[in-house]
This record gives sequence, structure tokens and C-alpha cells, in this order.
Amino acid sequence: MSQPLQNDLYLRALNREETSRTPVWVMRQAGRYLPEYLKVRKQAGDFMTLCSTPDLACEVTLQPLDRFNLDAAILFSDILTIPDAMGLGLHFETGEGPKFSNPVRTRADVEKLPIPDPMDSLRYVMDAVSTIRRELNGRVPLIGFSGSPWTLATYMIEGGGSKDFSKVKGMLFSDPESLHMLLDKTAQSVISYLNAQVESGAQSLMIFDTWGGVLSPENYREFSLRYMQQIVDGLKRESDGRKVPVVLFTKNGGQWLDIMADTGCDGLGVDWTTNLADARIKTGDRVALQGNLDPSVLYGSPEVIKHHVQKVLDSYGPGPGHVFNLGHGIHQFVNPEHLGVMVEAVRELSTR
Amino acid sequence: MSQPLQNDLYLRALNREETSRTPVWVMRQAGRYLPEYLKVRKQAGDFMTLCSTPDLACEVTLQPLDRFNLDAAILFSDILTIPDAMGLGLHFETGEGPKFSNPVRTRADVEKLPIPDPMDSLRYVMDAVSTIRRELNGRVPLIGFSGSPWTLATYMIEGGGSKDFSKVKGMLFSDPESLHMLLDKTAQSVISYLNAQVESGAQSLMIFDTWGGVLSPENYREFSLRYMQQIVDGLKRESDGRKVPVVLFTKNGGQWLDIMADTGCDGLGVDWTTNLADARIKTGDRVALQGNLDPSVLYGSPEVIKHHVQKVLDSYGPGPGHVFNLGHGIHQFVNPEHLGVMVEAVRELSTR
Repeated sequence: MSQPLQNDLYLRALNREETSRTPVWVMRQAGRYLPEYLKVRKQAGDFMTLCSTPDLACEVTLQPLDRFNLDAAILFSDILTIPDAMGLGLHFETGEGPKFSNPVRTRADVEKLPIPDPMDSLRYVMDAVSTIRRELNGRVPLIGFSGSPWTLATYMIEGGGSKDFSKVKGMLFSDPESLHMLLDKTAQSVISYLNAQVESGAQSLMIFDTWGGVLSPENYREFSLRYMQQIVDGLKRESDGRKVPVVLFTKNGGQWLDIMADTGCDGLGVDWTTNLADARIKTGDRVALQGNLDPSVLYGSPEVIKHHVQKVLDSYGPGPGHVFNLGHGIHQFVNPEHLGVMVEAVRELSTR
Repeated sequence: MSQPLQNDLYLRALNREETSRTPVWVMRQAGRYLPEYLKVRKQAGDFMTLCSTPDLACEVTLQPLDRFNLDAAILFSDILTIPDAMGLGLHFETGEGPKFSNPVRTRADVEKLPIPDPMDSLRYVMDAVSTIRRELNGRVPLIGFSGSPWTLATYMIEGGGSKDFSKVKGMLFSDPESLHMLLDKTAQSVISYLNAQVESGAQSLMIFDTWGGVLSPENYREFSLRYMQQIVDGLKRESDGRKVPVVLFTKNGGQWLDIMADTGCDGLGVDWTTNLADARIKTGDRVALQGNLDPSVLYGSPEVIKHHVQKVLDSYGPGPGHVFNLGHGIHQFVNPEHLGVMVEAVRELSTR
């Protein structure tokens, strides 16, 4: 029924198949650095209206593809849709980032959390996925995503962003059983959420563990990785007869790439604090690697950008399994033309 | 002339000599979690007055030693005293952290930066060091400190704290020569500043590289480690016939402990994202290791704290060369009695 995929470089690279060049996309490629995004964002009124209106979410998802030769689209949404659907009352305060009206602080708070039905309270996300997939019309694959249980739990317990994670770590050290219950419920919610995204048209999945890197190695295994493992085990890994690759990304997780690869995921996101050559050694070439240009390189001149693109390609070295990306989301005040320079440099310099 | 040192466990552990138990001190041990500190802080009026009044700086330096059985004192000061003495106009805006009135943005800004004479514009720091040393009267050794050139440069260029370091990295990628000139001037300033601290009575030194962990491995070597190496090479390493050990600490630098040990420093600070057993393997037992309890453990009960103290001791394992510390500064809202539990647990559980 759906159009055949015209560009499957991204899916093939994640399967570690040979490709004619290195595919490229960029975290937060639909976002505030694009004037056309800011226009739609303003029109929508607030951020959650933009996320929850499928036509608008589709429009901003496609904007970067119209400007740049990108090899994947990623659903425009927020990682906090699941806690919001659990009843935590997500809202965005200007200049302060996300906030929850009803943060989770006690065992009783955890016990009463529902596991949201993705076709009910998260239906707007599935409608966005199917709309985007239809409008993509086979141009490139569509990536669905979620936050990791640990990362979601940090926001749910802190009630928003945090610098020292005192509340969530307070629970981790004082009442680990309640935190495990919360993480398990969140993992179950993520599984049904991501499977519903695949059923709605997502062709690849990514799990963002933005805050796994604030944990000790032992706590990372117990409170973050364990639940990403639960998710990898519970996901639908095939759709329309094709594998749906899953990528895990723990920011500042360079020391743990080996145990992340053990989960059976297909790819790992790598930030710029780890050299891709070292990451390949650490993971024994069992998974594809996605990254890892420092987003700040885009403040440099076109020559500087090309130079550093070449260095990232060289650090990965020969052989399949590399997806070019920034090591974290693109910054708000980057000149969009500089992203164009990066994308074209990847295409040109990686062509085999 | 000065009193002989009654407790030299800290210095001996940094020299990797056998000690009867593991010495312990805590980053930011003189600070906002102590009600007696808040009282003096209020009396001083503002933070820089507290730093620049030797008697008050001495008073708050000694406060945690009167409460807890700590094995070292650390000069109460700020890492930004050097850029302030360079004329950048340090001030603290309520709830916003440090700010510079005259940030460094251009080559011309860098060229006109002076290398401060520590006995002139930083005389107040040296007076604090000699006052504290006199008042300590040999109880425990006094640690002097500085920020690393890279870390100081981030504040000097950003004009304060930062989330994405866009300005300093903008200079790094667009005009690395100017950044190198700034880092070299800062390294020269740090050398004379730390040597003056030793001449004034500091018995050990620590260099805080709070932001080295936001760099790629290659950029870390070129823009942070290289200048810490310059400092280690330029320091007076002996005073009163005794070695003055130097400790380097790069937050989120767990991946680079091996190349940090190559500088010839005596010890490395390790945050909690790296296991001390792995850190020992990485550094080949060439240096002492300082750390690395997650500061959030202090939100737990006394039993939880003792359990995690034991785990840190176990992770280091047998043999000399461990200084117990948190993996970063103590948090503001920790119950001071919990730090007491931690200190006593280290003394009790590590006694050989």
C-alpha cells in the first residue's frame, strides 16, 4: 500500500550493509534554528499544540528535508509525551523548559501511574506518524522515538529539568524499589508506544537516554540500561517484511558502549567525547554507530566544517555501519546554511 | 618556623605511601550546606568580599574541620580570581552564578590581557593562604587550587556559565590561534598563582578542570590537557623539604585518565561515572586516585551512606594511593550530619 522506499541508505547502514556513501541526518533537524520552523511554531501558539496537531507536526518534520539532502526523517514530538499521558500535566514555562504540575514523589504516586494506551491518550502521536509517513511518500525512512525510562523518570520525579538530579537520586538511594516500579511502568509504556509508532508507519526507532551519563557504572546498569534492555526485548523488530532497526543513545555514555551493544540493539548513538575508532573497538563492530560531530563545529566556516566532517569519517574508518550525525542536537543559533555545508560534505567526502 | 604536621595522611596517600587508613576530604566542604557558613556569608555581604577578606576566608575554611574529622583543608576561594585580576570584572548575579563585565571575544581582547602578579592583584588570596596555614597550626595539610586554563577560558569567553559553550567553541573552531594565546596566558598566570600559594603555605595543589569533559578527545588534548601539562611542568613541587603533590581533576574525564596520568601529576580526581578499579587499571597505578562517591548518596539514610562508602573503598581495593572524596562538590541541600556519617564511615571501614 505504501510507496516503496527510494532511499534506504539509513536502514542499510544500521544493518551494517555496504552503502554507496555514508547516510546523514541530524538530531533536532526539525527545530528552532530554521526560520520556517519558528513561523509554524508561532502559528501553533505553544509547543504542545505543535506536537499534538498531526498536520503541523508533519509540516515541521518535512521542513529540513526540503532544505537539505538528508537520509532520514524523524518524527517531530517530545520525549515527555508519555509522562504527560500518565497524567503528570506537562507544560512549558517560557525560558524554563518543561515542567510537570504533578511530579512523582512517593510510592503512592508511582502506584497510581497508569500505563497509557498509545491509541487513546497518545493517539495524536500515532496520527502524526501516519501523516508524515504518507507525506514522505517513500523519500526516506521515518524514525520514531522515545525517551529512555531513566531519562523520563528524571523529569517525572524532579518535576522538570535538573542540574544535580537530587530528587530522582534521592529516590534511587533511599527507596530504590519505588524507582524500579516507576521505571518498569515507564518501560512498559515505552514498549507499547514505540510498537504503536511502528504500526503507524515508523521504519526505525531511537531511544534517547539524555541523562544516563549522570549515573555511576553500577547504577547505569541497574537503573537505565536494564530498562532499555527490557524495551529492546519487547519491541516489534520487523514491519512490512523489513527489519525495524533500534538505536540507543546515552549522552555521556562513551564508557558503556560495550554493555549497550550487548542489549541486541542495532545501533548506538555516540557523542563527540568518544572517538569513533575507539567506539568500534569497544563494541567489537557488533552494532552500527551514529555520530559524532561536535554541534559547535557548525559555528565554524564552511572550510572548518568540511575539515571536521572528514575527520569524523576518518575516525570511523572503512567498512559499513556508520550513520553520520551530530553528537547531540543542533544548536538554536546555528546558521542553517552551515548545516547544508555539513550534509553536502558528508555526501561528497564519503562517496565510495 | 611553622608547626610540624600532625596529620599527613593526605600527603602520604598522594605519594602512594602506605597509610593506617584512607584519608578523606570533600570538595566544597566549606560551603552553603553549613549553617555556620551561611552566617559568615551573610555577614560578608557578597561572595567576593568573603573570598577577599583573609580572616573571613580563613574562618569558613576551618568550619568543616571543626565539625568533621577531615584530613585536609582547602583554601576557600573561587576559580575565577585570575580572570578577575586580569580585569574582566567578576560579579555574581543572584541565582545566575558568576558573570564577567568584560568578556574576551576577539584577538585584541586576548592580546591586551595581562598576566597578573599574584603578590599584587591576587595578594588577598595569598594572605588568606598564610592566615589559614597559621590558624591550622599543623592540624592537617592545606590544599591550594586553581581552575584549569580551559575551564577559566570558558567563563572568560562566554562571560559566565554556559550550557552549550557556543562562544568558546566558536573561537576554538574558527580562531584556534587566539584561543591558544588565551590559554597560554592563562596557564602562565596559573603557574605563578599556584607557586605563590605554595610560597604562602599551601602544602598540596589541585587543578579543577570542570569543563574539560565537554570536548572531543582530540580537542581535550589540544585545548585542555596541554595547558595542564604546562602548569604541572612549571610548578614548584617542593616546599619546606617536602613534596607538594598536584592533583588534576577533569569532570567527566573518565575516558582520559591514562593521558592525564602521563602529565607527571601525583593524583587524579575521579567522578562517580568511572569505577575506581577501572581507573586504577587505566592509570597503571602510576598516580593516586581521589574520589568518587556520588554526592547524591548523601541524600540517603546513614545505612545507605555507609553501604556506599564501603563500595567505593572496595572498588579501589587494596594498596596505597586512595584519597576518599565525593565525585564532585557537596550539594547545597544536604544534611550536614550526613557528611559526618560519611567521614566516620571512611575512617572506620578503611582502618587497616
